[in-house]
Amino acid sequence: MTPLKLLVTLGALGAASHAMAWDYVLLDTDKAAQPWQITSQQLGVKTDKPFSVTMRTLHGGRQEGVSIVDIDNGTMKLSVVPTRGMNVLQASVGNARMGWDSPVKEVVNPAFIELNGRGGLGWLEGFNELVTRCGYEWVGHPGMDNGELLTLHGRAANIPANKVTLHIDEKAPYAITLRGELKEQAFKKVDFSVQTELVTEPGSVTFALNDTLTNNGDYPKEYQALYHSNFSTPFLEQGARFAAPVKQVSPFNDKAKGDLADWQTYRAPTKDYDETVYNVVPYADAKGDTLTVLHNKAGSLGVSVGFNTATLPVFSLWKNTDTQGQGYVTGLEPGTSFSYNRHYQRPLGLVPTIAPKEQKHFQIHYSLLADKGAVDKALKRIGEIQGERKTEVRNTPLVDLSKP
Amino acid sequence: MTPLKLLVTLGALGAASHAMAWDYVLLDTDKAAQPWQITSQQLGVKTDKPFSVTMRTLHGGRQEGVSIVDIDNGTMKLSVVPTRGMNVLQASVGNARMGWDSPVKEVVNPAFIELNGRGGLGWLEGFNELVTRCGYEWVGHPGMDNGELLTLHGRAANIPANKVTLHIDEKAPYAITLRGELKEQAFKKVDFSVQTELVTEPGSVTFALNDTLTNNGDYPKEYQALYHSNFSTPFLEQGARFAAPVKQVSPFNDKAKGDLADWQTYRAPTKDYDETVYNVVPYADAKGDTLTVLHNKAGSLGVSVGFNTATLPVFSLWKNTDTQGQGYVTGLEPGTSFSYNRHYQRPLGLVPTIAPKEQKHFQIHYSLLADKGAVDKALKRIGEIQGERKTEVRNTPLVDLSKP
Amino acid sequence: MTPLKLLVTLGALGAASHAMAWDYVLLDTDKAAQPWQITSQQLGVKTDKPFSVTMRTLHGGRQEGVSIVDIDNGTMKLSVVPTRGMNVLQASVGNARMGWDSPVKEVVNPAFIELNGRGGLGWLEGFNELVTRCGYEWVGHPGMDNGELLTLHGRAANIPANKVTLHIDEKAPYAITLRGELKEQAFKKVDFSVQTELVTEPGSVTFALNDTLTNNGDYPKEYQALYHSNFSTPFLEQGARFAAPVKQVSPFNDKAKGDLADWQTYRAPTKDYDETVYNVVPYADAKGDTLTVLHNKAGSLGVSVGFNTATLPVFSLWKNTDTQGQGYVTGLEPGTSFSYNRHYQRPLGLVPTIAPKEQKHFQIHYSLLADKGAVDKALKRIGEIQGERKTEVRNTPLVDLSKP
Repeated sequence: MTPLKLLVTLGALGAASHAMAWDYVLLDTDKAAQPWQITSQQLGVKTDKPFSVTMRTLHGGRQEGVSIVDIDNGTMKLSVVPTRGMNVLQASVGNARMGWDSPVKEVVNPAFIELNGRGGLGWLEGFNELVTRCGYEWVGHPGMDNGELLTLHGRAANIPANKVTLHIDEKAPYAITLRGELKEQAFKKVDFSVQTELVTEPGSVTFALNDTLTNNGDYPKEYQALYHSNFSTPFLEQGARFAAPVKQVSPFNDKAKGDLADWQTYRAPTKDYDETVYNVVPYADAKGDTLTVLHNKAGSLGVSVGFNTATLPVFSLWKNTDTQGQGYVTGLEPGTSFSYNRHYQRPLGLVPTIAPKEQKHFQIHYSLLADKGAVDKALKRIGEIQGERKTEVRNTPLVDLSKP
Repeated sequence: MTPLKLLVTLGALGAASHAMAWDYVLLDTDKAAQPWQITSQQLGVKTDKPFSVTMRTLHGGRQEGVSIVDIDNGTMKLSVVPTRGMNVLQASVGNARMGWDSPVKEVVNPAFIELNGRGGLGWLEGFNELVTRCGYEWVGHPGMDNGELLTLHGRAANIPANKVTLHIDEKAPYAITLRGELKEQAFKKVDFSVQTELVTEPGSVTFALNDTLTNNGDYPKEYQALYHSNFSTPFLEQGARFAAPVKQVSPFNDKAKGDLADWQTYRAPTKDYDETVYNVVPYADAKGDTLTVLHNKAGSLGVSVGFNTATLPVFSLWKNTDTQGQGYVTGLEPGTSFSYNRHYQRPLGLVPTIAPKEQKHFQIHYSLLADKGAVDKALKRIGEIQGERKTEVRNTPLVDLSKP
Repeated sequence: MTPLKLLVTLGALGAASHAMAWDYVLLDTDKAAQPWQITSQQLGVKTDKPFSVTMRTLHGGRQEGVSIVDIDNGTMKLSVVPTRGMNVLQASVGNARMGWDSPVKEVVNPAFIELNGRGGLGWLEGFNELVTRCGYEWVGHPGMDNGELLTLHGRAANIPANKVTLHIDEKAPYAITLRGELKEQAFKKVDFSVQTELVTEPGSVTFALNDTLTNNGDYPKEYQALYHSNFSTPFLEQGARFAAPVKQVSPFNDKAKGDLADWQTYRAPTKDYDETVYNVVPYADAKGDTLTVLHNKAGSLGVSVGFNTATLPVFSLWKNTDTQGQGYVTGLEPGTSFSYNRHYQRPLGLVPTIAPKEQKHFQIHYSLLADKGAVDKALKRIGEIQGERKTEVRNTPLVDLSKP
């Protein structure tokens, strides 16, 4: 396929394209998703890390009609799901796969999911991504709030994106940017749009999410966001460790109290373990940036999740070290909020408000730490952020879950 | 119905002028919706108001796969949504747009809506049309009735139509008729079909809906219908007025009581106004026809909604004069019923029954009143229907909403 | 279209294909459903019963995007619905149609159904098949169990199948096998897959279902299955009879008690009859096989439903002899369980458990009994299975439905 510059519908992009980027519209109101590919070779980019972006559609089962965008940056391969909130299905560098093996094997089209099913747990029928967007009207466990059943972790993961565009810088390092917009709208209820953005550079082992939530409405509105970022082997294993600059940590519930002493280390796949969750308030640097790390027992392989605490002030560590088949996985989850139902989080000050026309930016960086040097460097950075500051370990949950 | 001429290719159209009409199947069990157009020029119709009918499909977001039929009658442009109950998305004559700006910007495929979500308010996630069909098993606010949660305004707006056909008279005035059938069927519960029909004539500023509800079942069955017809600027503005021949008017609820004195005039977009609703029992002429009008403050521009009270005996005036962003809109809503939950309306005699194999016809006419002359003429007609008959203004709601 | 052997993705099928079968992939992750046909003539099979398999897609209404596979074995025509759990829509031999006329006329895409709607009766909006798969996480009437609303008869009928393959033996009798896989998966909740299989032979009046349920999870899990097999005229009529080797029969509820004396005979379409249901525990032969028969009054036409009681130990006889329009139909329903909500069936021992990685096989045979000879032969077989063994007729239901 010869390179195309699609300048027809997006004026601003078109203008930019003449300057210094290649721009493509992959999906829009008048443009259906269809098999498509662009490669560095087609673009005439000479590089020892040839890259490509490919669009495909899944068929059969509950994944009928689901679009996938595969980005191969020459080193890291990423799969993004426009049909499911621009979630990142997986990322891999060689044999190191960021992501996990959920019992849910299909990439499920939201058309086949009832979020209100299973008492508000319908979300579980589609949950299998590396990064699952949660929000933006609410996150957290299902339950009643203001007379309405809030379903698990909100709608974002089950909102198909529109206006999916690809942007490749015309000069080195040829940054690749994939954007898609989510509309979360209901008359009298909510008028949000989320411009999602995923950026990676050819040859790198890193990608970033830069999301912008806009309240298009005329009234201030509560919102919540949580980036459910899920990892398994080869990072997660018996003796694997989690590190972060921690201001406060507390057990999510009574079950998590029991393992509090070991909250930063992981078990092998453990029958009947189910899950424990720890609520973390991280320290950040002067710019608000912080870093969290998951690494294997040997400290020779890891991943880091960095984020800005100005809009993502808290963090949940989800330790689902049950059996492989049940889903051996840990979630590193920066958020506005913890995973309690919204009504529990209001008193904690974790249900922020977005003003009319205001925008909130959420920035998260994911990096593979491919060797001991990379792991140590990240841990050193965490140590620098922590500095001499104390960690408060709370022995009891922040909320009394026995009170509905 | 006259025999159909199935003309698959545009090339064959020229030969289609033998009977008295051109007929096209746009969508059927064995015919997928696809880009298509027919124009008066292609039909060999010589007119100073060239007309066309176009079919298109939307992509991306929650509107993936939604079909739209655009009718340009030479003067008025209409958009009909087969995927959403043959709802009329909008109609416009020049700059005068019938319809409104909902926070819901997508034309949402019902596959992505859970009507049972948000406590039965899931319907609000797709509500943005000029005419939204409500019914036909029930209309009204969500709530329990006979042990079942009735979701807001029933299913009609979220039933995709089958057998969408286009019929154009072969002689002047070349009336254009678009039909689509809605099936509202559930074993043991309901066996309705609704033959919807929209008719407009080239060059006119009017369209009509002629719907036929059939109870295919062997048992009598309760039904309700309401045509949620929604207008904003340039008709709705501060000082705009509503007129109708009124037998009785009453406030929908306590909030509406407060503005009862001004129920026929409108506010500018008003922060925190939310909505008021007035229940109207209209007078009609000897044939049962009645007319309602919304016009701007100057009386120089308006719309009329006429309907037959034999099957649509009551009317709701929905005044949602909140901010523009929240949805500045008023609904002129002929119906079998008001907008209370069905269980409130049975004692009011507003839950009619349709006998086995019986048909009920619903006829509504929409006209642009393009100048003062047209507005005055419509108001005069309203005055003639009212005649000397009295209007009863009830100060209290017809039902006690404090009693569930 | 020329015959193709698609050997690419399915290793086992590919190997088989070289040996003694034609194999086709009709639908898979990377292969969309599309119009397709294969005929015995194309395969070079010389037979006096030419056979064919055809795939088509439905459009319009709630059936948009539904795939149908039509199998004409030369004598019997079957229609299978991959989009709806590989359900068998109907089967016919000449004028004898196995199946029924539901008020639901569309073959409804599950994307348009909310199983949780109507208080858990949303399933009724799509119910119209000859064989509707019920299960596999649960079957039975809606109601709360373990704090979750179980919707009517589970999800299987509304799970679209993936990996739909067709297998035709390359030698006489050229058995035709259609397979499709259902995934019933939700994180932390269930990890089932069901390999469905329908087999028929050219020229026969029989087809068989051979389904295999696999618990892919690491934990034992409750499951239930019920094959809702539905027949109407010409088999069902006033005086039609049901026969089976019966160990125990009991009325489902108080209403069924009243007609207990006539539980094996049928009424004409009867206004306001609604339905009666009888719970049957069948006898089987030494291999666990049993047989049930429905035949017309004259005993000259019938159908048999045979199954293996090792995994389908009980049977429900559903007598819905209401009016034709309401759905004049009887269900012959082999199952793990009766049609009570799951919480009622646990004390009856009818909620079995499937171990991790275990498989359960469900085998059901459907045959047209085209004349008196065939009917008599089937009844004789039933008599042989019953032998001298007694039938217990219980006068009261097995469960007390007044206790929730």
